[in-house]
Amino acid sequence: MSTPFDPRKLRALVFDVFGTVVDWHTSVVREGRLLSAAKGLQVDWPAFANAWRAGYAPAMDRTRGAGAAWADIDTLHRQILDGLLPRFGLESLAEAERAELNRVWHRLLPWPDAVGGLNRLKSRYIVGTLSNGNVSLLVDMARNAGLPWDCVLSGELVQRYKPDPEVYRMAARLLGCGPGELLMVAAHPDDLRAARACGLHTAYVHRPLEFGADAAPAPARPEGFDLVAADFLDLARQLGA
Amino acid sequence: MSTPFDPRKLRALVFDVFGTVVDWHTSVVREGRLLSAAKGLQVDWPAFANAWRAGYAPAMDRTRGAGAAWADIDTLHRQILDGLLPRFGLESLAEAERAELNRVWHRLLPWPDAVGGLNRLKSRYIVGTLSNGNVSLLVDMARNAGLPWDCVLSGELVQRYKPDPEVYRMAARLLGCGPGELLMVAAHPDDLRAARACGLHTAYVHRPLEFGADAAPAPARPEGFDLVAADFLDLARQLGA
Repeated sequence: MSTPFDPRKLRALVFDVFGTVVDWHTSVVREGRLLSAAKGLQVDWPAFANAWRAGYAPAMDRTRGAGAAWADIDTLHRQILDGLLPRFGLESLAEAERAELNRVWHRLLPWPDAVGGLNRLKSRYIVGTLSNGNVSLLVDMARNAGLPWDCVLSGELVQRYKPDPEVYRMAARLLGCGPGELLMVAAHPDDLRAARACGLHTAYVHRPLEFGADAAPAPARPEGFDLVAADFLDLARQLGA
Repeated sequence: MSTPFDPRKLRALVFDVFGTVVDWHTSVVREGRLLSAAKGLQVDWPAFANAWRAGYAPAMDRTRGAGAAWADIDTLHRQILDGLLPRFGLESLAEAERAELNRVWHRLLPWPDAVGGLNRLKSRYIVGTLSNGNVSLLVDMARNAGLPWDCVLSGELVQRYKPDPEVYRMAARLLGCGPGELLMVAAHPDDLRAARACGLHTAYVHRPLEFGADAAPAPARPEGFDLVAADFLDLARQLGA
């Protein structure tokens, strides 16, 4: 479905965010350890972070299909969190502490190359999110992490979650261009395959530490995408930005 | 419907754009005069600019109500433009020239205080557009004019035009806050009255030259809004930003 790949014909780059732009694992572990230090709790925070993230795809899946009620990521994160607290010995957290911990997703840290790479890419292309995170989460994150988005696009705008094709089509429609003028940037092959099926071009970025140093790393060079980059600075180099 | 006004309780400022942030009159006149210089045309560009803008509200009104088809501002601007060309002796413009002239709305110049004021306001509050301009127009304008938006919100996202209340409600929903935590900033009392009816707080900014130096200026201090400011720097001072 894709047009031949020519970087000069791209108008905009749209980015997956969780794992691709920001390092949720390190961020959740760090805030958990601060909570442990403040309250004298013993928690396996790397396992907690991965369990929280593992609940994400099933929670989104429950919002799909006829008759299902859509809910935003803040709501889904909180539902998953409430289910995890007993398993990790955190039942004692008060409501305000739970709400504050749930907001960690608004404060995620960028990967070391992300801000510098985005600023370079922005000099040449429109750069936007194309995330399942809700708009207010993405706006808070961008202000906190210095992410220089030209626009914040989210599945929330059509009440669908990637890999639903409506999300990728929305990006082309709102940016006023054809799908072949967009480059989807993600660390996740399934996201890129769904974008490719909608006619977008695709760039895979390798994030070997997404699930922490002890997890099996993602593939470095998967097949089938227009670009494969080691990080955003490498992507900027490949695009001449 | 509004909660008592306390700047410390605001979370975000949302801005009308055409006339409030950017000076469409000067921008259209200047690009018209460049076209005259290039092609040896005699055109009353100030009258042309105001006629183009005067077609805007009626064009939006044709998209409202049951059975009406929504169309974005790029499309409406082009329909109005095509109607004006014979009246101003511009029938000879080729299709590419018409399309390029229509894109002037993507390249509008900010008022002298707009970029500096927005940067100050952004240091304290989320700043976003809440415009009838389509997303791609607003993104192009921001990149061209250096407008530091945290997010680009548009009536396009709900396929409605201000002063439809759905547009103001959308802003609160997407920014994850109550309407009373938003401040609508505009140079147009009708926009502010509609925002106020939805529970937003309101700031009027005086733009006496919106329709050019020869037109009757807007009122300097209309009644009924939470703040009245001479420009964005004055607004930042009043908000302690």
